[in-house]
Amino acid sequence: MLIPYFVRRVIHLALEEDIGSCDLTTELIVSESQKSVALIISKGNYVVAGLPFVNEVFRLAGQGTELGIFLNDGSMVEKGDIIAEVSGLTRTLLSSERVALNILQRLSGIATLTHQYVQKVKDLKVKIVDTRKTTPCLRYMEKYAVRTGGGSNHRFGLDDGILIKNNHIKAAGGITAAIRAAKKVHHLAKIEVEVENLNDLREALSSGADVVMLDNMSVEDMREAVEVAKGVAIIEASGNITIERVRDIAETGVDLISVGALTHSTPAADISMKIVE
Amino acid sequence: MLIPYFVRRVIHLALEEDIGSCDLTTELIVSESQKSVALIISKGNYVVAGLPFVNEVFRLAGQGTELGIFLNDGSMVEKGDIIAEVSGLTRTLLSSERVALNILQRLSGIATLTHQYVQKVKDLKVKIVDTRKTTPCLRYMEKYAVRTGGGSNHRFGLDDGILIKNNHIKAAGGITAAIRAAKKVHHLAKIEVEVENLNDLREALSSGADVVMLDNMSVEDMREAVEVAKGVAIIEASGNITIERVRDIAETGVDLISVGALTHSTPAADISMKIVE
Amino acid sequence: MLIPYFVRRVIHLALEEDIGSCDLTTELIVSESQKSVALIISKGNYVVAGLPFVNEVFRLAGQGTELGIFLNDGSMVEKGDIIAEVSGLTRTLLSSERVALNILQRLSGIATLTHQYVQKVKDLKVKIVDTRKTTPCLRYMEKYAVRTGGGSNHRFGLDDGILIKNNHIKAAGGITAAIRAAKKVHHLAKIEVEVENLNDLREALSSGADVVMLDNMSVEDMREAVEVAKGVAIIEASGNITIERVRDIAETGVDLISVGALTHSTPAADISMKIVE
Amino acid sequence: MLIPYFVRRVIHLALEEDIGSCDLTTELIVSESQKSVALIISKGNYVVAGLPFVNEVFRLAGQGTELGIFLNDGSMVEKGDIIAEVSGLTRTLLSSERVALNILQRLSGIATLTHQYVQKVKDLKVKIVDTRKTTPCLRYMEKYAVRTGGGSNHRFGLDDGILIKNNHIKAAGGITAAIRAAKKVHHLAKIEVEVENLNDLREALSSGADVVMLDNMSVEDMREAVEVAKGVAIIEASGNITIERVRDIAETGVDLISVGALTHSTPAADISMKIVE
Amino acid sequence: MLIPYFVRRVIHLALEEDIGSCDLTTELIVSESQKSVALIISKGNYVVAGLPFVNEVFRLAGQGTELGIFLNDGSMVEKGDIIAEVSGLTRTLLSSERVALNILQRLSGIATLTHQYVQKVKDLKVKIVDTRKTTPCLRYMEKYAVRTGGGSNHRFGLDDGILIKNNHIKAAGGITAAIRAAKKVHHLAKIEVEVENLNDLREALSSGADVVMLDNMSVEDMREAVEVAKGVAIIEASGNITIERVRDIAETGVDLISVGALTHSTPAADISMKIVE
Amino acid sequence: MLIPYFVRRVIHLALEEDIGSCDLTTELIVSESQKSVALIISKGNYVVAGLPFVNEVFRLAGQGTELGIFLNDGSMVEKGDIIAEVSGLTRTLLSSERVALNILQRLSGIATLTHQYVQKVKDLKVKIVDTRKTTPCLRYMEKYAVRTGGGSNHRFGLDDGILIKNNHIKAAGGITAAIRAAKKVHHLAKIEVEVENLNDLREALSSGADVVMLDNMSVEDMREAVEVAKGVAIIEASGNITIERVRDIAETGVDLISVGALTHSTPAADISMKIVE
Repeated sequence: MLIPYFVRRVIHLALEEDIGSCDLTTELIVSESQKSVALIISKGNYVVAGLPFVNEVFRLAGQGTELGIFLNDGSMVEKGDIIAEVSGLTRTLLSSERVALNILQRLSGIATLTHQYVQKVKDLKVKIVDTRKTTPCLRYMEKYAVRTGGGSNHRFGLDDGILIKNNHIKAAGGITAAIRAAKKVHHLAKIEVEVENLNDLREALSSGADVVMLDNMSVEDMREAVEVAKGVAIIEASGNITIERVRDIAETGVDLISVGALTHSTPAADISMKIVE
Repeated sequence: MLIPYFVRRVIHLALEEDIGSCDLTTELIVSESQKSVALIISKGNYVVAGLPFVNEVFRLAGQGTELGIFLNDGSMVEKGDIIAEVSGLTRTLLSSERVALNILQRLSGIATLTHQYVQKVKDLKVKIVDTRKTTPCLRYMEKYAVRTGGGSNHRFGLDDGILIKNNHIKAAGGITAAIRAAKKVHHLAKIEVEVENLNDLREALSSGADVVMLDNMSVEDMREAVEVAKGVAIIEASGNITIERVRDIAETGVDLISVGALTHSTPAADISMKIVE
Repeated sequence: MLIPYFVRRVIHLALEEDIGSCDLTTELIVSESQKSVALIISKGNYVVAGLPFVNEVFRLAGQGTELGIFLNDGSMVEKGDIIAEVSGLTRTLLSSERVALNILQRLSGIATLTHQYVQKVKDLKVKIVDTRKTTPCLRYMEKYAVRTGGGSNHRFGLDDGILIKNNHIKAAGGITAAIRAAKKVHHLAKIEVEVENLNDLREALSSGADVVMLDNMSVEDMREAVEVAKGVAIIEASGNITIERVRDIAETGVDLISVGALTHSTPAADISMKIVE
Repeated sequence: MLIPYFVRRVIHLALEEDIGSCDLTTELIVSESQKSVALIISKGNYVVAGLPFVNEVFRLAGQGTELGIFLNDGSMVEKGDIIAEVSGLTRTLLSSERVALNILQRLSGIATLTHQYVQKVKDLKVKIVDTRKTTPCLRYMEKYAVRTGGGSNHRFGLDDGILIKNNHIKAAGGITAAIRAAKKVHHLAKIEVEVENLNDLREALSSGADVVMLDNMSVEDMREAVEVAKGVAIIEASGNITIERVRDIAETGVDLISVGALTHSTPAADISMKIVE
Repeated sequence: MLIPYFVRRVIHLALEEDIGSCDLTTELIVSESQKSVALIISKGNYVVAGLPFVNEVFRLAGQGTELGIFLNDGSMVEKGDIIAEVSGLTRTLLSSERVALNILQRLSGIATLTHQYVQKVKDLKVKIVDTRKTTPCLRYMEKYAVRTGGGSNHRFGLDDGILIKNNHIKAAGGITAAIRAAKKVHHLAKIEVEVENLNDLREALSSGADVVMLDNMSVEDMREAVEVAKGVAIIEASGNITIERVRDIAETGVDLISVGALTHSTPAADISMKIVE
Repeated sequence: MLIPYFVRRVIHLALEEDIGSCDLTTELIVSESQKSVALIISKGNYVVAGLPFVNEVFRLAGQGTELGIFLNDGSMVEKGDIIAEVSGLTRTLLSSERVALNILQRLSGIATLTHQYVQKVKDLKVKIVDTRKTTPCLRYMEKYAVRTGGGSNHRFGLDDGILIKNNHIKAAGGITAAIRAAKKVHHLAKIEVEVENLNDLREALSSGADVVMLDNMSVEDMREAVEVAKGVAIIEASGNITIERVRDIAETGVDLISVGALTHSTPAADISMKIVE
């Protein structure tokens, strides 16, 4: 079930937000029965992501609209490539164009950026993962785009994994106290702890952390942390991971590198829709 | 500020998306009655935007949470500045932190970028305006951020203004036909038409367009277009407006410059929350 | 898109309101598989309006119901005329009959009344327009009925046009102050101001109002107002516009006449549904 | 008064419908912190109805708005009477004025019309009752207005009473068959049957109808019907009950007279809101 | 209309509750296009109830799933009997299995228990009825299961019948006062009163109660109550009705016996789903 | 306790389901302003569970209702014990009584039954856990009741843990294939596999299962399974776990015992509400 309920509700809201009471321009200019074909065209070099959601936009916007996909999600496209063709009532195409493109542009931007990170470390065993720094309401779609670009996903939300961060440690009165409390979690969950230095790391490991997140450490510290933790816990590097630094970090031997920028500061892909008949 | 229903629904969904069935980590580690105070701190130089929405996040997340604002929306902050203080149940603070920050980071990013564009042209009469290339479901908040950064707003949606774009012209069979049909609009709306060259511009003006959008024209063509249209219609420049080009375009004498990048490719501001007691 | 989301939600609620947990009578008396054909018949002389919404009622109430339309919206019908035929499961027809008729009766009543106003002034250039004095939740449908009856629409809501009324002027401290503030609106909107006398009118015009609404003026004052404002602003007459007065007012030369009674005090058309087989 | 969920949802939708993304005029002209007091004033002679719903409108529209009621629901008001005073943020007052008044005007119109019917028969034991010909989504409020005007309520919906109408009889193959099937209803419900002549009436009574509805009968036939049915079943008169005919019908001795016009064709009361400080 | 809106919303929520953001296991293990056939098999002796709701679960969970019913609701099944076959996308079958079974198991449990009560008294005229002690949100479905097991329904909710209970009598200041106030109800409703002893019963009858509920009385007292009330009011026995006592109570001559245990303490039927190809 | 959105929505629906358009009896009998105090009293021996949800019911039902808790969740109560006191508008108390009690009775029933299982094995290290065989829409509340009774929770839904069941293995073509596919899950999740015999168990372990569920095995087979799997994987016993068998199963040395009956076949606790003033 690729498009679960939540996504449908979000797409619904997005159409409601954009169309409001009616698409004034289109209703005045285009007759009810007119039909058209439009092409969705790339205006740059990207990894495409989001076509199932685009399909859902057109499906929700009006009956009888058909999306013919020429280049599947995950394809590398160049300027001028035709990604898909959409046909149906002209009014529906015009009224839903912007929402469809806003989603496709954002998700393709994310897939493209993820792909660039993944390429930098593709010969290593490390995984590039996302964070919860996603756009409000679009997390499911954005995490799909990260996978499309070759990345992996971290937690979907606060309910599907334990991650003890600095504020939790502060509230609990220390790493050991926090881990001990978290051990009451159901038996299918592992416990991850954020650590800022090697002392924290050692405390986390001796308290039984399954995963450690090295937060904003220098490459040198990470190397030492890997020596300490390898084989005992899964190791995630996090904090200010730029495309320039990602290779160095990966080479320390960490298992995962989480990159907030994949979703919080992504340039949109430039993709447009053009009516052709 | 009155938070409109739509925005409240979006914030609700965002909390639902992030928290899901429950915040596992927090419920295990933090007792029900524990209270905390946390600071919201800038980690860079930005124009702050979004505090009323942050307030709404905390309000919806749990009763009794209080947001004390130190630096209002529109303030210029530097690294280390404390923007606000939030106090209440520790569980509520921790469970809603990410949604609050995701919104504040995005909106402050938009206000900051808008401010940079506005600064480039501040001695001219031109307005920097946004587009409909906003994040799905966040348009109202993002347009607020644009205003906070000193910009102005274009249409909120397809229902509050007539803008005849290329695809409409194609569907209508020409500029004149499209404008004629649009004239049936209610008496409070003006009609804007997208034109790609000077011929189109002349046709639009002679058909009675109130506003013309010069789409992707060279600076030279824009200058000529302004000569033709000034005083007859309001003139908007659009398409690929980079921070480098914005001054040159402004100097052609156009009335408005619309910049999609304000909202579709904005780097998030780096802002964090830290429990202090 | 004739039936946008909002309308669908309203029709949904109306069915929920009428049917509640179940249609007791029908479930007890009619078997699940029984099918019927029913006719929708006019019992008076009207302009029909609302069939697309009636269709939506039957569509939402149960699958497989078909509405065959004999006389389209906008048709003049007489007593005994068959407007449409609906066929499907007998249970669905009976359970949704009342909601369907309540909508059709109200909208046809509005179209009929609008038609009467429009006929009085059909040789003049003036437009008959509606107001926001519509039935809560039914505005979109009622404005459709006004158009069907030959009228035009004023604003759909507070978000698609600027109309400065007395209470705004009072709150702003005067007409000029109010107009000045409103000028910050986006460039696609015109500014309309309500005036009660010729002094107000002159102040509004000199402050740059695009449209003036003459509120509850005598025909003589309106005539003078038209002399002052013609060519400078669009002129709307408003307030207590009865069918008896509409012609006189129109002859003053105003551009628009807005009539609250079109929607707030309309007698419902008498239309019934009869199972025939 | 407890406002049921359904009503709250309807008022919510009505505000959403009217305000949309924002109240453009008010946000531009009135500052966020400005406060005002407004009076709700009658401009004619009416029975007031709807103040609890008006209160709910203001409550939902914004925090801190207070409604001070001077003349309770059910009061007779004259032109110029002040019904209530509302104070709070000016923006909230202006943005919710129209929805509040649309509800108050409609409900006061209904209470006033009901009162006129009730006065005609006040010395008799007959009850004036409403029908399901109410405005879609407003039934609960409109039935409240009928009670406020001195009338009584018929069914709220299809789920709280059995009423076998012509179309049911047609579908069931006869009055006796229909009543027999309906007898399976739960033990708290009575069974009402619509009859068009004295033969139908006798069949309904001998099949055990608890209530009979005399549909569109002449006064003479009704008189005869009352003789037949009095003491055996409750008798309701229905169909084309005008204010002119209601007394004659009442004098036949029927128990109930149901009047669709109370809600489907009611002129709105003229009530306005005026900011005074 | 067997599946009204409310039920659909509840099934929707149940799927949302169980599936959350995604069915992790299934999405990882089963390909998107794989199809399967599964059997729904009884593992004990039951009266089947709930197949229309199971059908709705699969319909809402994904398009193209087909439910082939072998043994209709109301059938008596034995261990090993195949109740139905469901075919479609494997992912949909697996992701919705639990919700479908949870509903079918509960409703079949209720139908089976109801059947046991009904069998005990099948040669008498008494009806076995349910109460409002149903599972929150599942009332409509559970009352359907009671009917499927041969029982009858009491009120669906607080809006479709008058039942004056002890707390109402306490609040009203006595039985007579309560009944008098309730007489203002619409003419299609009867009035039921809960009584705890013969004195209460006599007061209720002389105040005009249509139905009396004998609450937690001994069999002897009930016998005497029947003598007093028979022919004057409908008589319902209620309170701690076990399968052992039901026959004795029925033989007192009461008209209805209401059994909370039918829905509040029902053992679920053991029914499973097995993929066969 | 933070009441998550989902739970709030469910309680909302439950009130809507029970109250419908209005509480007829209460509105007729009790005046708007009357206030009362009521006691919530146990009529048997139970572990109380659900008071925070009862509080939410009263909070949602009407403003100003206060719940004073005398015996917290987890308390053992006897017949006659006063659990809580609720005060507020009489109408609100009466209209929300049934929903409040339905929840409290069900959850206390679950806590009580869980407590009985837990007592049987309290000196062993094994955990009693629940399943997904919960009441549709009430899972969060029911899992809370299980914890209140001393049990632990299994997965909340399909999105927060991997559990490969027979149908998954059938669809994947074998245990090894299924586990291999599941290994792509995010790094915070463990993988659990259902096995029916010792061969399956060995295959699951050698494929890297983190947890194994012994499904419907004999006590002897479980003992052998524990010998094979102890130290390699967490071991869960499941399938037909009665209160009589739970001790024997626990003594085999399994880590977890999951009991569907805790939630799918629980007798409701007998708890009532009585107005005292």
